[in-house]
Amino acid sequence: MKRSEYESAKLRTKAMFEKAGIVLTDEESGNIEVAGFGLNDLERQGLELITYVNNARYCAKELVLFPRQTCPEHLHPPVGDDPGKTETFRCRSGKVFLYVDGQQTNGIQAVVPAGSEDYYTVYHEIVLEPGQQYTIVPGTLHWFQAGEEGAIVSEFSSTSRDEFDIFTDPRIERMPVIEED
Amino acid sequence: MKRSEYESAKLRTKAMFEKAGIVLTDEESGNIEVAGFGLNDLERQGLELITYVNNARYCAKELVLFPRQTCPEHLHPPVGDDPGKTETFRCRSGKVFLYVDGQQTNGIQAVVPAGSEDYYTVYHEIVLEPGQQYTIVPGTLHWFQAGEEGAIVSEFSSTSRDEFDIFTDPRIERMPVIEED
Repeated sequence: MKRSEYESAKLRTKAMFEKAGIVLTDEESGNIEVAGFGLNDLERQGLELITYVNNARYCAKELVLFPRQTCPEHLHPPVGDDPGKTETFRCRSGKVFLYVDGQQTNGIQAVVPAGSEDYYTVYHEIVLEPGQQYTIVPGTLHWFQAGEEGAIVSEFSSTSRDEFDIFTDPRIERMPVIEED
Repeated sequence: MKRSEYESAKLRTKAMFEKAGIVLTDEESGNIEVAGFGLNDLERQGLELITYVNNARYCAKELVLFPRQTCPEHLHPPVGDDPGKTETFRCRSGKVFLYVDGQQTNGIQAVVPAGSEDYYTVYHEIVLEPGQQYTIVPGTLHWFQAGEEGAIVSEFSSTSRDEFDIFTDPRIERMPVIEED
């Protein structure tokens, strides 16, 4: 991702937090993470986030999705003594279409990113509107997409070790570098 | 606590969530917990809360304090294999004066509830405004009070076992029954 794209996505994320009444410190605003997953397709496949706390026991983040932006399919594997991350997604604003392992839902509401269809394999749909939440147990393949207005999602979880996440799309790099323009 | 006082505190809590733009489901609104700690002094010593999730790994709550309302001094002890609850308080709206073990702050900003002075023993002050947060490690005595406008605080933590909390005030019951009017 180019530096200019990163800075622009940060500003857009900051504006969404402000609109939702979610206050960040200046330091946090400066550290908003923009995850493009090395796909060079941020508008369609990406995620913006702030990690409030991530210690040896628990983690809390705020996730932002732009309109129709998708966090690609992945799972959280066991790491050492940790059985893998358990996470609860709570929708704060907008709408989220979440897909997990399980019986396929007919006529899903998300739009699978064109050209990446092979890497979206689970289709059991859960729709989250503000105030609604869902907990994902370790080892569950999942992906999610915001509706037309974008979404803000609080994530409450066990310890995050994002670098171990297993993505279905082999082209994905979870932690790519930012390139200066 | 009388049923009428409980219902009134619930409505007031609900209004504070609405004002802050924090959306609850109807079921959650109906289940707002009003903790008076058996002191019959809710306006000054009490806490209102919603538990979003509390599983074997982590817990997330939203805490509400009315103006100048105080959550009495307590600590989270070890329980079985658990070393005790670690918790992160993140101020979402209003202002919170938090006191923990440590060097006493001169001229603290909270008002110690009159008649309960013996049960407030730690005076190291941390002030939390929206976007600011603080993590309390297990076994740390702490208490907190909202400023003049009340406060909403997100609590991210390891598993909650509120029934084991140790309060400094021996009159406190964490889980008193509601009496019908």
